[in-house]
Amino acid sequence: MRILGIDPGLQTTGFGVVDAEAHTLQYVASGTITTTHLARGDLPARLKVLFDGIAELRARYTPDAAAIEIVFVNVNPQSTLLLGQARGACLTALVSCNLPVAEYTPMQMKQAVAGTGRAAKAEIQQMVKRLLQLPGLPGKDAADALGLAITHAHAAIATARIQQAGNLARRNTGSYKTGRVV
Amino acid sequence: MRILGIDPGLQTTGFGVVDAEAHTLQYVASGTITTTHLARGDLPARLKVLFDGIAELRARYTPDAAAIEIVFVNVNPQSTLLLGQARGACLTALVSCNLPVAEYTPMQMKQAVAGTGRAAKAEIQQMVKRLLQLPGLPGKDAADALGLAITHAHAAIATARIQQAGNLARRNTGSYKTGRVV
Repeated sequence: MRILGIDPGLQTTGFGVVDAEAHTLQYVASGTITTTHLARGDLPARLKVLFDGIAELRARYTPDAAAIEIVFVNVNPQSTLLLGQARGACLTALVSCNLPVAEYTPMQMKQAVAGTGRAAKAEIQQMVKRLLQLPGLPGKDAADALGLAITHAHAAIATARIQQAGNLARRNTGSYKTGRVV
Repeated sequence: MRILGIDPGLQTTGFGVVDAEAHTLQYVASGTITTTHLARGDLPARLKVLFDGIAELRARYTPDAAAIEIVFVNVNPQSTLLLGQARGACLTALVSCNLPVAEYTPMQMKQAVAGTGRAAKAEIQQMVKRLLQLPGLPGKDAADALGLAITHAHAAIATARIQQAGNLARRNTGSYKTGRVV
């Protein structure tokens, strides 16, 4: 399963692509989409850059699923509104072509990557580097996005295990019942 | 020029399509896109409904331009974040196919439609009905969206007039200069 992680932001949106097979994680790509070259007030153009950027990633890497960070309210309400719009553009770029999207809080991502929901940015960069055996430290936004992809890989493995256990339990229950009837 | 007006909202997004030719406004269509049939927490699915809905309007009515309302921060920061994401999805649906998008505040729309930035919702509905010679009152969200399309039609006429005046002034200046040189 190929996962596209997205850490949304109006100025800089981080992305990370990871292949997850059983317990093996394989780095594919990562980086950022930036809108800082555009006029701050031209929100339509900036959202278009985010949408087009993610559409390009989708076309180039053909992920099977996406994971996007759940953002929180900022102390500055105007920043909250802008971040919301940026996330809306990113999320729309993912769902507009029916890519399944999972949402994770920063705490869930930190817990999955570093084992603690309170890990600092630098720890996430270090852990992502180690987990994906990267030659160097990824940038902060790219590391967060790769972290989200890793979080989704872990969640998918856990879900598959629960389903397998459920199937096994159902099979066992079936034979037990048959045993009683016979 | 055919204008698509959008009043963005996560639960209900209003839309209105108006043809503007010189000083004549012609009603084409209006209505709402709602996401209330979906689970409140399934934001990706709700944003997809908004994106797909606007994409469908774009395909059906082939507008030349769009006008979208500028939203403001809510007293509830969480609502601000959700409204921001909804507006981000709507705006992205408009710009993703290179439709030119203008943004207007509710006050600018009210001023253009009712002559005062403090007009109540009911006044906007009445004025939109009168300006577009509708047989009945449009719904509140549809009226706001039609109001935005009307606002953009007025702005486009004003801009064209200024450009014409500018061209005339340049021509006059040109002949005057020629006169002096000769």
